[in-house]
Amino acid sequence: MEKTLEVKGMTCGHCEKAVKGALEELNGVKSANVHLEQNTVDVSYDEANVSEKEMKEAIEEQGYDVV
Amino acid sequence: MEKTLEVKGMTCGHCEKAVKGALEELNGVKSANVHLEQNTVDVSYDEANVSEKEMKEAIEEQGYDVV
Repeated sequence: MEKTLEVKGMTCGHCEKAVKGALEELNGVKSANVHLEQNTVDVSYDEANVSEKEMKEAIEEQGYDVV
Repeated sequence: MEKTLEVKGMTCGHCEKAVKGALEELNGVKSANVHLEQNTVDVSYDEANVSEKEMKEAIEEQGYDVV
């Protein structure tokens, strides 16, 4: 499944790595690609193994807000 | 010796840590305190052990410009 999440507060390459890394560490997430200018993250995941709630929590743990 | 360096491109807490860490790793730097809003870093250092050039290079290696 593909989904675009809107994430607030990502400003630089470090933020990009933090969010991408936190998502891709989750079992069930295939890939996560951050678009800094758009404040979005495109995630590709298997909805049988990971929920949108878990992905949002992983992002929030890094200090960013998911809209 | 105390000096305030002007650094461009620091946007978030990760940037702050990267610059502070790179400076404090240098032999001769006692402390480095980043002020994100002012785009400055206050450094306290022993000029017998570290030069301003070395400090600027350490910051630039992290991907930031020193004005």
